[in-house]
Amino acid sequence: MSQSAKRLVLAARPVGEPKPSDFRLEDYPVPVPGEGQLLLRTIWLSLDPYMRGRMAEGPSYAAPVPIDGVMEGGTVCEVVQSNNPGFAKGDIVLSHSGWQQYSLSDGKGLRKVDPKAGPISTAVGVLGMPGMTAYTGLLEIGKPKAGETVVVAAASGAVGSAVGQIAKIKGARAIGIAGGKDKCDYVKNELGFDECLDHRDPDLAAKLKAACPKGIDVYFENVGGKVFEAVYPLFNTFARIPVCGLIADYNTIFSKDSVAPKWASSIVRMILVKRLTFRGFIVSDFNAMFPEFIRDMPQWVREGKVKHREFITEGIESAPEAFIGLLKGANFGKQLVRIGPDKV
Amino acid sequence: MSQSAKRLVLAARPVGEPKPSDFRLEDYPVPVPGEGQLLLRTIWLSLDPYMRGRMAEGPSYAAPVPIDGVMEGGTVCEVVQSNNPGFAKGDIVLSHSGWQQYSLSDGKGLRKVDPKAGPISTAVGVLGMPGMTAYTGLLEIGKPKAGETVVVAAASGAVGSAVGQIAKIKGARAIGIAGGKDKCDYVKNELGFDECLDHRDPDLAAKLKAACPKGIDVYFENVGGKVFEAVYPLFNTFARIPVCGLIADYNTIFSKDSVAPKWASSIVRMILVKRLTFRGFIVSDFNAMFPEFIRDMPQWVREGKVKHREFITEGIESAPEAFIGLLKGANFGKQLVRIGPDKV
Repeated sequence: MSQSAKRLVLAARPVGEPKPSDFRLEDYPVPVPGEGQLLLRTIWLSLDPYMRGRMAEGPSYAAPVPIDGVMEGGTVCEVVQSNNPGFAKGDIVLSHSGWQQYSLSDGKGLRKVDPKAGPISTAVGVLGMPGMTAYTGLLEIGKPKAGETVVVAAASGAVGSAVGQIAKIKGARAIGIAGGKDKCDYVKNELGFDECLDHRDPDLAAKLKAACPKGIDVYFENVGGKVFEAVYPLFNTFARIPVCGLIADYNTIFSKDSVAPKWASSIVRMILVKRLTFRGFIVSDFNAMFPEFIRDMPQWVREGKVKHREFITEGIESAPEAFIGLLKGANFGKQLVRIGPDKV
Repeated sequence: MSQSAKRLVLAARPVGEPKPSDFRLEDYPVPVPGEGQLLLRTIWLSLDPYMRGRMAEGPSYAAPVPIDGVMEGGTVCEVVQSNNPGFAKGDIVLSHSGWQQYSLSDGKGLRKVDPKAGPISTAVGVLGMPGMTAYTGLLEIGKPKAGETVVVAAASGAVGSAVGQIAKIKGARAIGIAGGKDKCDYVKNELGFDECLDHRDPDLAAKLKAACPKGIDVYFENVGGKVFEAVYPLFNTFARIPVCGLIADYNTIFSKDSVAPKWASSIVRMILVKRLTFRGFIVSDFNAMFPEFIRDMPQWVREGKVKHREFITEGIESAPEAFIGLLKGANFGKQLVRIGPDKV
């Protein structure tokens, strides 16, 4: 009799905020690898805001997860069985095997992770997709110059924390925005941002203005919503806005009857009169920059110039609530789910 | 007794569409040049949509015209008196002396126009600001590649007509949008665009989709409004949108109680999922490209690769109505006002 494993599938397309009943926990038999295939055991599952987009229908940069399909996600896995000469039992690999305990792979798209280079979880964090999102978006689109002011929302998160610290490395001022005093203290005192403001503060706009006396040159947009309303009046001429996510708007912009945000009419005018650059991107647009990223980022982490924090929940059953929390900012650092132990 | 001249000043800041009473025709004495100064006689006044912005208060890339101030505008003038060794009586110069018959200059910012190079009016047209707006915005931001589809609104106008013809020179498909059959015929048959659609056509969206079977890679945005609503669903991934004007929105976006256009909420999502680049610019941002422009554009005009048309009204008194008409698309080609004869 085959061994049983657990996975999470999309039960229903969410309307507004996802709820636990939009996911379904299923048992399934651990699959048996065929010729050339590997059996992967998931150790870490990365939860990321983009997954909200995959739960919705409609045009996006990737196809949606089908109803009853396994939820997508980046993972760090152990090779437990290999019929593929490129991989050996015991190898640790970066995969995109989703919200499940075991999966098959033909080896394509896998990247080996060196466990000696640091905790293997960083392969989906500061040394993985979120870190590279920060690195490429900030440096290729934001192009911060020394002395300029860079504002980053979700500053304690996996992407935002790296954005601000890289901005500092490049000689810019880094102003963070985060949710609550604990996160703000962390961003300012531990990560070394010049300032961090609480987005729940009713005086956010005034405080942001005070924190940016020379205006804003780069806004790393990964939040949308009210934070953007405070930010946009401060844009300097020629400001650059890399757009990699709109967490606060994910639950509304994927609704059919969404209305234009209040700032939309102002921003149309501002693009023109302030000659702003808005540019959307996803990390894979900059795959060609991976060699630079993997040269710089591990070194910055080793030198303590880029610090990071992980926010871990335990067990595959915890993933839906953890994801729902992520969209609300309940996490503090890179959101990970431990699906299985490092070794069995 | 000094000679008298006429000028147009801003009488009131328009609310919505400018009306004739927002301007006032005044008599004033022809000024007398002091040491180092020139007396300029205006021959051609260029009317351009950006002037709507100068009539409004609020942050812009340039200060507004003060109430009772002379309306701004690019001009082609004759030097009628010179106390400046850099200029001689009879020289033709490009100036920014505004809506008036005579003005003083210290010579700064003037550019001599060679009457042998072509009609002097082109210095404010295809070989001037509008031509350079098209050239720089399309080539520096739009970056059309051979085989891509470039859509241009206001395609019969001074900027739009050049944008489409330059796109063709670069091997792209050029689809124009213009107001009415005559303009569309001109754009397609005389200017050589691949297609031109009437923005008044109730089926614009469907016809544009049919005219762009491979989607839209570059949209030269100088109109806004309903045209944009037809365009944005067709954007390809990585589409570029140089934003140099929003004629249709000028009368609303400069109102305090403007509401977000219908497309605003969709576009926010699209910037992200289609990785669009929106970039605002004004021609002076690209002043460094003038040598390239003045190398390429006159040659393209001589070779017949860039054709242009002028729409002329006679006499300074005609300027307000001509400008009001320009914002509604009443012109057919580059809008000029003949302020005085070539020679007196």
